Amino acid sequence: MDLDAYLPTLLKKNTIARLEDGRLLIGDRRSYPWEEQSVACDSVEAIADAIRDMVTQGGGPLQVGLTTLRFVARKIHDGVMVDQARTFLDASRKLASARPTNTTMARALQDVVSQIARWYVCSGVQDVHANDLVGFVDSIIDDKEKALDADYDAMSDIGMQCIGDSDGILTTCFAEHTFLLSLAKAKERGKRFTVFVPETRPYLQGARLTAPALHEMGIDAYVITDGMGAHYMRDGAIQLYMTAADLVAMDGTVVNKVGTLANAVCANHYHIPYYAFAMSPDPSKRSIADIVMEERDGKEILRIRGVPTTLDTLVGRYPAFDVIDPPLVGGIITPKGLLKPTGIAGEYSTGNSAQGEYNS
Amino acid sequence: MDLDAYLPTLLKKNTIARLEDGRLLIGDRRSYPWEEQSVACDSVEAIADAIRDMVTQGGGPLQVGLTTLRFVARKIHDGVMVDQARTFLDASRKLASARPTNTTMARALQDVVSQIARWYVCSGVQDVHANDLVGFVDSIIDDKEKALDADYDAMSDIGMQCIGDSDGILTTCFAEHTFLLSLAKAKERGKRFTVFVPETRPYLQGARLTAPALHEMGIDAYVITDGMGAHYMRDGAIQLYMTAADLVAMDGTVVNKVGTLANAVCANHYHIPYYAFAMSPDPSKRSIADIVMEERDGKEILRIRGVPTTLDTLVGRYPAFDVIDPPLVGGIITPKGLLKPTGIAGEYSTGNSAQGEYNS
Repeated sequence: MDLDAYLPTLLKKNTIARLEDGRLLIGDRRSYPWEEQSVACDSVEAIADAIRDMVTQGGGPLQVGLTTLRFVARKIHDGVMVDQARTFLDASRKLASARPTNTTMARALQDVVSQIARWYVCSGVQDVHANDLVGFVDSIIDDKEKALDADYDAMSDIGMQCIGDSDGILTTCFAEHTFLLSLAKAKERGKRFTVFVPETRPYLQGARLTAPALHEMGIDAYVITDGMGAHYMRDGAIQLYMTAADLVAMDGTVVNKVGTLANAVCANHYHIPYYAFAMSPDPSKRSIADIVMEERDGKEILRIRGVPTTLDTLVGRYPAFDVIDPPLVGGIITPKGLLKPTGIAGEYSTGNSAQGEYNS
Repeated sequence: MDLDAYLPTLLKKNTIARLEDGRLLIGDRRSYPWEEQSVACDSVEAIADAIRDMVTQGGGPLQVGLTTLRFVARKIHDGVMVDQARTFLDASRKLASARPTNTTMARALQDVVSQIARWYVCSGVQDVHANDLVGFVDSIIDDKEKALDADYDAMSDIGMQCIGDSDGILTTCFAEHTFLLSLAKAKERGKRFTVFVPETRPYLQGARLTAPALHEMGIDAYVITDGMGAHYMRDGAIQLYMTAADLVAMDGTVVNKVGTLANAVCANHYHIPYYAFAMSPDPSKRSIADIVMEERDGKEILRIRGVPTTLDTLVGRYPAFDVIDPPLVGGIITPKGLLKPTGIAGEYSTGNSAQGEYNS
């Protein structure tokens, strides 16, 4: 299945990240939907900075990270970077540290980097020709991307089945491939539905990314403010709540963009099922106690697209992510199927390698 | 007690509304806190338009409405408006229709207008001298303002008692006199606390009005986005949730700014008490079925301080108010004391006149 054909511009692989003239170009989600710009990066450090500055976010860093390894292979080929396995490891660590809470990219890169390291060991560095390296790295990443696409495809089949005809569907932030593909497939099967999209302050991912993407896909959507989810639940306009998950721990705890919890609590109160899409529950995180929760600069709350929302002398707070405790989660849609929070550990125990998740 | 001394600039009577050079000046909350401007109105129609355009909101229209009757009396004195009781009634109806959900102003004006009407009947219109009219209207409104101040004072005594030392207090929107006076009194008694202030999109009353007012009052506050209340409740940082109430029906249903419900549901989930300040439960509203719920233009959601938050071609929704069902409400702080939602009807039955509430 050609997923790119179903996906809005914003999520096409080349929009998220591509190599061009020796640089890595990252689709700049901050200026979307008004401008379709890219940030051009000349180095791994510049790529990490772009991720930290939220040029891309959510699932974006995963695609950027994979493309960064292609970028590194080419820099080694061109003699710009040193030819050793450690170069890939250093690159992946720099990217991983840019946003600490969502570990999907970090684990995917770890997987690829360990394959590259094995190759160095087997072939011996002195025998490695840079051309071989580019071809080898590309082939690993091509495989990884195919596996990811297969996961998106499987997960969106489940998501599609969760959607009922004439549903009102609440989301939070920008739930990307799995959510949008679920909607595209439901639409294709003739289901009618409306998506309620909270704007998702402070960076407006809901208003700027989700809503225009749905518009491009021909799906009915309303933009609402972040406090309005409960209003429409009480009104009976919402039958389903679906979000991405930046991280899922082995006890079924979901971590996602701040604002997700309030809607999950309200959905629970109004007996509306909440499903989270999780590409890769993290076997190294037993519970919330193991998760690094990112607190961003509170000043980011006091502006909107550069315009002050109040006096600069006031104090904002910006916890980037919410923790949604397992009893609030109706189901977690994973590449291994629709799981109850209590079923995560069984499918993704610490005994499994990170590789296992992706290749399943 | 001189309440004005405790209140921030924004809530001083002269800031909300004052007469100057034959015009009524309304403090413009839309440009606050950056500019302390007023909108000058030459007619009752202009005043109604200003209320509709949210120059002032929440409890503001009540003070504007009372000052409008002083304005009308002077216009009659100057021969600009026709000298009859109906002139006051028409004015109060024009103002009431500008924002249909909050009926506090409408009922307060009805009370004053009925006193004026009785005076016309008793004195006979032909005997009324315009000077007498201005003096008479002013004296009624002076009394009404004193009664309102007494209510604010009594309610904030209760609010102050609800606040515990080292509490985190969540609010929504701008809960005005009663809430801020409660905090001022709690601070004066040496209680330490921190207020979490959701910014309150789309018009940012939390970020622009509540937070700067607290700053002016020397009270610690954090500005957060509208989706973050649950985050801090789960964290254990919040012990109390307090808001104003635009309307309270006889069954204890609370109506307040959209966003109030989500926080009330979450407070209920995390066993945090929710108290609403209600100046005047409305005896004519038995339940939510009797309440006109204002739906504003969805385009207002797609901008923030004039800056687009997404494409203009998308569809926004703006239900201005939430309905908070009685089981979610821990207590309603009224001039007649702290009442359970089920206790409202007993104190404010339809048998009581609107007048009764204010003079209690």
